[in-house]
Amino acid sequence: MSLAAALLAGPGAPQRRAMAKAITLLESTRPDHRVQADALLTELLPHTGKSFRLGISGVPGVGKSTFIEALGLFLIERGHRVAVLAVDPSSSLSGGSILGDKTRMERLSMDERAYIRPSPSSGTLGGVADKTREAMLVCEAAGFDIVIVETVGVGQSETAVAGMTDMYVLLQLPNAGDDLQAIKKGVMELADLVVINKADLDWAAATRAQAQIGSSLRHYGHSGQQASHPRVLQVSALKASGLDEFWSAVELYRKEQASSGGLEAKRRAQAQDWMWERIHSGLRQQFAESPAVRDLLPEVTGQVLQGQMAASTAARQLLNRFSGKV
Amino acid sequence: MSLAAALLAGPGAPQRRAMAKAITLLESTRPDHRVQADALLTELLPHTGKSFRLGISGVPGVGKSTFIEALGLFLIERGHRVAVLAVDPSSSLSGGSILGDKTRMERLSMDERAYIRPSPSSGTLGGVADKTREAMLVCEAAGFDIVIVETVGVGQSETAVAGMTDMYVLLQLPNAGDDLQAIKKGVMELADLVVINKADLDWAAATRAQAQIGSSLRHYGHSGQQASHPRVLQVSALKASGLDEFWSAVELYRKEQASSGGLEAKRRAQAQDWMWERIHSGLRQQFAESPAVRDLLPEVTGQVLQGQMAASTAARQLLNRFSGKV
Repeated sequence: MSLAAALLAGPGAPQRRAMAKAITLLESTRPDHRVQADALLTELLPHTGKSFRLGISGVPGVGKSTFIEALGLFLIERGHRVAVLAVDPSSSLSGGSILGDKTRMERLSMDERAYIRPSPSSGTLGGVADKTREAMLVCEAAGFDIVIVETVGVGQSETAVAGMTDMYVLLQLPNAGDDLQAIKKGVMELADLVVINKADLDWAAATRAQAQIGSSLRHYGHSGQQASHPRVLQVSALKASGLDEFWSAVELYRKEQASSGGLEAKRRAQAQDWMWERIHSGLRQQFAESPAVRDLLPEVTGQVLQGQMAASTAARQLLNRFSGKV
Repeated sequence: MSLAAALLAGPGAPQRRAMAKAITLLESTRPDHRVQADALLTELLPHTGKSFRLGISGVPGVGKSTFIEALGLFLIERGHRVAVLAVDPSSSLSGGSILGDKTRMERLSMDERAYIRPSPSSGTLGGVADKTREAMLVCEAAGFDIVIVETVGVGQSETAVAGMTDMYVLLQLPNAGDDLQAIKKGVMELADLVVINKADLDWAAATRAQAQIGSSLRHYGHSGQQASHPRVLQVSALKASGLDEFWSAVELYRKEQASSGGLEAKRRAQAQDWMWERIHSGLRQQFAESPAVRDLLPEVTGQVLQGQMAASTAARQLLNRFSGKV
């Protein structure tokens, strides 16, 4: 049975093995693997896109794992199949800071209705995000109808995850400094929904934070969603409290987006953005690997740093060399 | 007399004509002009870098023109020669929103110790910023020892201006909503100095804003400057009040940066960033103009939008076509 056939055959041990094998193939950098991977993706593509793609981010300590495990268990009880993927560009340095630890989400990871895969650890954010997007397609082809993509608040990873999901949820702690931090970073603008997690720690603080964040979102004219949709919720993942309200909010958002055509438009825009992002990073790679550029670069860079050549002149010389004009 | 010789000959009508001619040459997109422009830049380069490069930004209505005119008059009275350039990526659409209007900075523009040049209106921010950087080199070669680069708060133009100047000053209005806006956009992080302009409108509000912005900057650990340096000042450009304090702060910053080696390091990093920025946008242009890419792009984009081809696969096909591998 081909890899694609095993993936499409339905739940069971062969499918799980095929998923692991397919994702490993997609993560490989060997050129012949890449050709096989592209063929596989093209074969799977008609069977993708049917899941709801949920992005979840939050700073370390906000309780992402506990929240996602509680949510995952909540969802499989209701008949869903749940895949959890991650984008963590720091994992190649740290050896896996999220999802690498096998003891995380212990109950969820042992359930066959769930599939958990740690972040690829292949260096740049672009590369990591790319592999996660492709892994998402594999999970969808295998019939997982909820795909959760998790990220920690590092650099631009939130933007990457918001750019590959249908709905982007930001987890916050119930204290005041935290939300200002998110406003500053522009992360909150990305959020379709803000969840104050660990609300049980301090219900009064959580309620203040909810009001404050709600007001900030109104102030900055957040336009990512329908006006009818709640924007800030309180949850205590540890006590499994608030999850039903959370999921109702997600479902409402999903329905609104589907009926307004917003979901389809978002996915088309995301696919196009993804293509151009890959093209731009591929161009940089071709440039960096060009022997003609490599020959000239040290000398020209030296001249720029010593103020002997204008940077714009240097760029033009290198570009001409790259394109074979000189 | 060659253009370079006229530029280097010292103040006077021939130099002014040469400056206008040189900047027009730099802004030209004709390939033969570009070759001449590169030759000119290389000739001028040893005579550049001696000015202090001051970036000034602020939202429309903050009083940038009045501030810069008052500052320019203040500086020429003290023996400086002042050039004012602008980065305004919207000017190609609006027909010049800043500095295009000849009646702006009327007194300063009539003084021969000052040189005012509107923003180039050549489309993308990268292109506009590039031309302004090159015009700055022309002004420096012509002996202007203070170059002010102005920008309006549009998109990423603040980042571009902070990336080409020695010190970046953000003008703010004396009210509370405004500074939160700047924090949100990350602009304040770029600022080496924040100036509350129009403080005369409401001294009490200006003082509150000063305290609030000062506290935000401390909170977010702004690291752009020495701890000894004042970070927030009040000015009333209209009443020419606070300009001497402003200029003392600039001079102090400049001395600290020069003696610590920070200035030199910043300029080297800026030159290198400039080169790479130009390379990356040049690569995108080569890609967009490649006949092989143009042939394939519509079909592949269509397949991506219809979900028939994964975006990553499409990107690889186009990149292979571009590099002639297929």
